[in-house]
Amino acid sequence: MATTRKLKIGIVGGTGYTGVELLRLLALHPNAELTAITSRGEAGMLVADMFPSLRGYIDLPFVDPASADLGHCDVVFFATPNGIAMQQTRDLLEKGVRVIDLAADFRIKDLATWEKWYGMTHACPELINEAVYGLPEISRANIQTARLVANPGCYPTAVQLGFLPLLKAGVVDSDHLIADAKSGVSGAGRKAEVHTLFAEAGDNFKAYGVSGHRHLPEIRQGLSAMAGKQAGLTFVPHLTPLIRGIHATLYARLTTPCDLQALFEQTYRDEHFVDVLPQGAHPETRSVRASNQCRIAVHQPQGGDTVVVLSVIDNLVKGAAGQAIQNMNIMFGLPERSGLEVVPLLP
Amino acid sequence: MATTRKLKIGIVGGTGYTGVELLRLLALHPNAELTAITSRGEAGMLVADMFPSLRGYIDLPFVDPASADLGHCDVVFFATPNGIAMQQTRDLLEKGVRVIDLAADFRIKDLATWEKWYGMTHACPELINEAVYGLPEISRANIQTARLVANPGCYPTAVQLGFLPLLKAGVVDSDHLIADAKSGVSGAGRKAEVHTLFAEAGDNFKAYGVSGHRHLPEIRQGLSAMAGKQAGLTFVPHLTPLIRGIHATLYARLTTPCDLQALFEQTYRDEHFVDVLPQGAHPETRSVRASNQCRIAVHQPQGGDTVVVLSVIDNLVKGAAGQAIQNMNIMFGLPERSGLEVVPLLP
Amino acid sequence: MATTRKLKIGIVGGTGYTGVELLRLLALHPNAELTAITSRGEAGMLVADMFPSLRGYIDLPFVDPASADLGHCDVVFFATPNGIAMQQTRDLLEKGVRVIDLAADFRIKDLATWEKWYGMTHACPELINEAVYGLPEISRANIQTARLVANPGCYPTAVQLGFLPLLKAGVVDSDHLIADAKSGVSGAGRKAEVHTLFAEAGDNFKAYGVSGHRHLPEIRQGLSAMAGKQAGLTFVPHLTPLIRGIHATLYARLTTPCDLQALFEQTYRDEHFVDVLPQGAHPETRSVRASNQCRIAVHQPQGGDTVVVLSVIDNLVKGAAGQAIQNMNIMFGLPERSGLEVVPLLP
Amino acid sequence: MATTRKLKIGIVGGTGYTGVELLRLLALHPNAELTAITSRGEAGMLVADMFPSLRGYIDLPFVDPASADLGHCDVVFFATPNGIAMQQTRDLLEKGVRVIDLAADFRIKDLATWEKWYGMTHACPELINEAVYGLPEISRANIQTARLVANPGCYPTAVQLGFLPLLKAGVVDSDHLIADAKSGVSGAGRKAEVHTLFAEAGDNFKAYGVSGHRHLPEIRQGLSAMAGKQAGLTFVPHLTPLIRGIHATLYARLTTPCDLQALFEQTYRDEHFVDVLPQGAHPETRSVRASNQCRIAVHQPQGGDTVVVLSVIDNLVKGAAGQAIQNMNIMFGLPERSGLEVVPLLP
Repeated sequence: MATTRKLKIGIVGGTGYTGVELLRLLALHPNAELTAITSRGEAGMLVADMFPSLRGYIDLPFVDPASADLGHCDVVFFATPNGIAMQQTRDLLEKGVRVIDLAADFRIKDLATWEKWYGMTHACPELINEAVYGLPEISRANIQTARLVANPGCYPTAVQLGFLPLLKAGVVDSDHLIADAKSGVSGAGRKAEVHTLFAEAGDNFKAYGVSGHRHLPEIRQGLSAMAGKQAGLTFVPHLTPLIRGIHATLYARLTTPCDLQALFEQTYRDEHFVDVLPQGAHPETRSVRASNQCRIAVHQPQGGDTVVVLSVIDNLVKGAAGQAIQNMNIMFGLPERSGLEVVPLLP
Repeated sequence: MATTRKLKIGIVGGTGYTGVELLRLLALHPNAELTAITSRGEAGMLVADMFPSLRGYIDLPFVDPASADLGHCDVVFFATPNGIAMQQTRDLLEKGVRVIDLAADFRIKDLATWEKWYGMTHACPELINEAVYGLPEISRANIQTARLVANPGCYPTAVQLGFLPLLKAGVVDSDHLIADAKSGVSGAGRKAEVHTLFAEAGDNFKAYGVSGHRHLPEIRQGLSAMAGKQAGLTFVPHLTPLIRGIHATLYARLTTPCDLQALFEQTYRDEHFVDVLPQGAHPETRSVRASNQCRIAVHQPQGGDTVVVLSVIDNLVKGAAGQAIQNMNIMFGLPERSGLEVVPLLP
Repeated sequence: MATTRKLKIGIVGGTGYTGVELLRLLALHPNAELTAITSRGEAGMLVADMFPSLRGYIDLPFVDPASADLGHCDVVFFATPNGIAMQQTRDLLEKGVRVIDLAADFRIKDLATWEKWYGMTHACPELINEAVYGLPEISRANIQTARLVANPGCYPTAVQLGFLPLLKAGVVDSDHLIADAKSGVSGAGRKAEVHTLFAEAGDNFKAYGVSGHRHLPEIRQGLSAMAGKQAGLTFVPHLTPLIRGIHATLYARLTTPCDLQALFEQTYRDEHFVDVLPQGAHPETRSVRASNQCRIAVHQPQGGDTVVVLSVIDNLVKGAAGQAIQNMNIMFGLPERSGLEVVPLLP
Repeated sequence: MATTRKLKIGIVGGTGYTGVELLRLLALHPNAELTAITSRGEAGMLVADMFPSLRGYIDLPFVDPASADLGHCDVVFFATPNGIAMQQTRDLLEKGVRVIDLAADFRIKDLATWEKWYGMTHACPELINEAVYGLPEISRANIQTARLVANPGCYPTAVQLGFLPLLKAGVVDSDHLIADAKSGVSGAGRKAEVHTLFAEAGDNFKAYGVSGHRHLPEIRQGLSAMAGKQAGLTFVPHLTPLIRGIHATLYARLTTPCDLQALFEQTYRDEHFVDVLPQGAHPETRSVRASNQCRIAVHQPQGGDTVVVLSVIDNLVKGAAGQAIQNMNIMFGLPERSGLEVVPLLP
């Protein structure tokens, strides 16, 4: 459905980093009209009083979720902790509102797996199947007609886009994939916690969740679909002292010789938001800072049988708010780049 | 002169931070067409090969200054070290090209002062008087008709905008002004130097140039003009471990009681790019990151006679490239905000 | 009282930054034996499990404050939030235990002032007068015989040591002193709060508490004592993205011409932990990182009547734990540098 | 040879990070007496004038290499760029001086490999065989009697200590080892270069040298010796915005089931400077900051056949100067921990 009028947009949970990032991008989106931004804790406060960066661009106050009239929106984004969207989505869909969940409620198709990793009972299991996993480079057609989009996680976006060409072409051993991923601290959200304090996370580097991270089943689900069979993945996330950015370093054993550079370039030839760098390049996280871009390079060190893929995104944009807007654009027949023309900020 | 066609733009010195920042902003400017970007050292290289953040936005190569056809440009920006623009400006003006110098060649009206602080003989003293100091909030009318604009320094922008309301109103002792200013490291430019290495400037804080900094005479010239008499200024710059941002903390002795908040709000009522925050606020540098905004708060601690002004800018935008584009917009009768609608990046 | 046996030491509140810093330094102190480290929340946990940096150096567990036998200690350090030490000090003193409070309970002599700024009723006002303010460079003799030492705040240490020579000599206008101070984020403590998250405080710079900060009355009390009359002070603290370090930039109006460099060198000639740098120097915070040193430089820009003093300390060492140990050494007749021989960490 | 007198120590190249780190540690070493610190560029300057952190600890000036009397030293450290030590070592050895090279001149046994990766002709090939590779946990006995020690690189130290237990036990596939390593920026040295500027390396993350890094042959040589056959290694180094620290994340395919935790603990049971963390732990780089410690954890995610080892060191200490001093201690029969008792700096 193409549209020329402005879409009425609601945001549930506007005080976290994905929320304020949606606001940053939607404030200048030519087809977007923000109508409600909810916050349980900050209702009544002007959004721009909490985030002075938005002064002059957003003049709405936060409204209490209970009193927000989201039913008249065209689309509602959930920028909430896990477990909130699943409680409100059914009602919104019934009112004809499309829903894009930036949290994990509808990402995993297997209910038992979801409940195990997220430690709660799903409030709305009947919508899991309908939900479309919103990685446009994989499922654009389904997103076009979706009522409910499960926006991918940040790590899963960087990792899946990096492995996609290899797995679709079937040229690597999909039983022993390795994703060594590094994330900036904003990936942990705007929550008061000790381990993400400046004095804790600054000038420090560590792995975490090696025994198991919630993004593991999400990534594995995606990689398995690409491979056409159950994929085996070792996923090691790390916390690195930058604010924004994910760098995924991916390792796979090559089973079929091929021109890797050509394979990657061809796979993403028509994808505006995935940029395959020239042979030998090393993408930097800052080269995508503030933008919806994913940049990828593929290497075959010393001509051996280990393929190394380097994939970078801004975790808050292509890894969250930007991809959500990209999904919105697709759902409503807008130009896919609408509102997402941002030159990365360097330095 | 209002114009609807795209302005032909040349950039001399495109490999430094102010150069790449001009490119970031001009790439999306609706009235700008980049026609030449020069670099002595990188001629022939694609700009986007040096700065992958520009891939997809800038497809020009760097050209050698000698072979660049700048004479057909509408406007040329000098994003060069001090001492370059003064050698080429006369020739360009004669060809009808307007010039905006982001370096210091034309900022200081007193030739002897300039030559003392910059340690060179001025190559073009006859243009110093014609040059308009490009702080739009002070000299917008002159900028409109200028052929040559001297774009202010980063510290001078933050400090002058902070002192302006007090000095114009004549309510403080202008003999003993203090500007304690803190700059991010990008202010030192993209030059290979030891003291701005990550391992030197990171996790470290220091003052520098206390005995005298080149921005001192520039600021003093501006403050004296506001005060209508020679101003006395102590200026202490500091290097702080952030990439972008200047925070100026200004101190002045109040001589005439007045409603400071009202004074500041009134002064900047019609200025889009100067935002006076509510009483009691503390502007953060990140609240202007990537944008052309200056945010200011004024305090009178414990109701005493010392006024404290807090003024923040992004040194590469309002302190350099953004202000240069603002000047260009004014010179060519474009909407002043054209190409400068950027929501600051937070976090 | 000189001693050769090891002092039995208790630490109340071992999980904050001043606590772990006491542990780092005392672990290698030749005359110290840690006997109890309390924590309400972490009782039973090995200290080195919470802080793996201490593995191999500290093998004690945290103990519950209720069951800790602090009465047999020679000295107890309170590395607690404000308001804790005042509840337990009387009892400890009665048992012959010396007390060093790293919080603010006994720093301010005027009870009403204390209660106003700290927002609580003092639990132990009768000890306020006895408490010795533990800035050794000012009150070493009193510390030697003290039972109770109020360890100075971090800002107050840097600011007072910087102003001391000027005020004692009576060469500046003490009615209009300005302290523009910048602190690393560890100064805010190891508390889960949003504004000190890496993604909030990183790549950002801001002033705070301009209208009034708790260290203001503490500093004013000290400066007034030096000046021999009520001093007037404008104090503006800033948060800067470094982990450790305070940089105080001090401004005063010179009323009596004098050789400032000689004045400073002479004042601190016999002070091991205050290092006056050569004329023209700019101390960096990293030059004192991890050490108990304060480094100071004095400037008189352009030979005018404004004196600029630059004073740096590590807020967790000379601004907290190191100074506390220095006080302990003095109280027990140990060499003042005992346990404090640390070469600053650079880079 | 045990010794009680102080060793006379020379340092060639005292202006880089490994040089100043040697000075930091040796200043407090009970058995060390610094006698000469050379610098071609800074001869005559007091060392403490260049590095104010050393004021009060080092009162020597830099001396010109040509006039330095190194022949009377007991030991000379080369903290120089590659290619310097090989020119002076023969002469020093003939004079009875022991040599520890912190650069790469003597690390690689195969001359052709060395010349290929370092791009120069070796000036002293006859000493390559005699040189002992100074990783004490592997070759302590040989170090005891060595005249010439090749101090390992920073990455090689972290990676080899992490793989050692697995390869010695022969429980993994040594043909397909993966080392994903992340280094702080000080690893690039104190050289004026653009890519390590604060504004370039800050808030940024990237891989580099994926096609081949000089530490690859050094690591491969070490791993092959452990495995008893040619090892296959994919080595991907990354630059991360911290000052100090290396985090190596190592991947290997398990071929023989075993108790990994016990294997690692047993291997390093008697090694003071290698600390195996409890099951499930994630070592942080800051837990070893400023110290000679290596901390290691071993994981077997989801009980699969991929072993993940996490290994952290401070690149300037265990990865350079600290290990060099550890080697000196061994060579001269001193206690191995002498001068290396440093509690890591946290936060």
